[in-house]
Amino acid sequence: MVNFEAFARMPREPRRDEVLDAAARLFARDGYAATSVRALADEAGFTKAGLYYHVRGKEELLAAICAESIEAILQDVERAVVDGAEPAQQLAAIIDAHVRFFHQHPDRLTVLNQEMGRLSAPRRRKIVRLERRYLGLLRSVLERGMKSGALVRLDPTVSAFLLLSLVNGLSDWYDPKGRVGRDALIAHVQRITLRGLAA
Amino acid sequence: MVNFEAFARMPREPRRDEVLDAAARLFARDGYAATSVRALADEAGFTKAGLYYHVRGKEELLAAICAESIEAILQDVERAVVDGAEPAQQLAAIIDAHVRFFHQHPDRLTVLNQEMGRLSAPRRRKIVRLERRYLGLLRSVLERGMKSGALVRLDPTVSAFLLLSLVNGLSDWYDPKGRVGRDALIAHVQRITLRGLAA
Repeated sequence: MVNFEAFARMPREPRRDEVLDAAARLFARDGYAATSVRALADEAGFTKAGLYYHVRGKEELLAAICAESIEAILQDVERAVVDGAEPAQQLAAIIDAHVRFFHQHPDRLTVLNQEMGRLSAPRRRKIVRLERRYLGLLRSVLERGMKSGALVRLDPTVSAFLLLSLVNGLSDWYDPKGRVGRDALIAHVQRITLRGLAA
Repeated sequence: MVNFEAFARMPREPRRDEVLDAAARLFARDGYAATSVRALADEAGFTKAGLYYHVRGKEELLAAICAESIEAILQDVERAVVDGAEPAQQLAAIIDAHVRFFHQHPDRLTVLNQEMGRLSAPRRRKIVRLERRYLGLLRSVLERGMKSGALVRLDPTVSAFLLLSLVNGLSDWYDPKGRVGRDALIAHVQRITLRGLAA
């Protein structure tokens, strides 16, 4: 039987990304609970038996979508922060990285935001650990900005969560194919956030 | 048979609020799809037959929670806006009203934010109409602020959605019984938003 860990180690499996994209599309549109394995197989172009050859069930797909989304964002965000720039510039880079990821993979981020609570406890804990790392990073940037006098002294945990709400909330309203382009959106979120947090 | 409309007309039915609170608690904790009518009856202190005397099914409960939450917020928000104050003050009053409602009914707002997509189309349309009215109100306050020169010229629809993300995102992280009190939270959100949107 092919288990999740083996599935996760197959980055060059050509159908893998298509299967995850198909699953993200259905989970984002219909919700995880309402999506059947048959619908997932149909959307990915498999028979049900064919899909079961790749994954043990739909929770493995949800786990992969959630884990890979937060890992990818975190990687981009950590890259944005290491270079010793001013805290305000680092916040701008974090917003840029997060919005770019959403723009490229809106369904995956929607699923992460809306459905990660449906994961079994051990899988959810893994995602929560990654989210905490992201939150800790944001908080440390905010704290450095406060110390240097560039950012207003406000509870850094609250500010970090509010900033995450802004970018995660995109899945509720923003259409990547709509009237407002990616770069205009990034500039808008940066403007409000940086001015809002400036000392 | 007692239908939804009759149920909705029974504001003085003493058990009504308890039933809605119990349903909001379970929907917020376990998700709408995963909550059974039996669990709802148990949580509300009814037999299953007793609950069916009051509502035709769990979708009626979801519809009532969503509709009454958005109606209550909208009422508070419209009251905050009619008095001819400066746009920035009106934004502050809107944030105050929305955060207060969340603080008082966190589960109801969580259900509205996370589960309204599970409603049947006609019921969902009713909620969407109310949400559009809220959005239109926010946009008109922002536009007046831009015209008067008090607020920065940014796409008012994007700003309105970002502001809604800030307050709706509370259900993802804020614990009303936690370390950060209601009034400190309101002041924090107002500070970031008003400075972020100031010209």
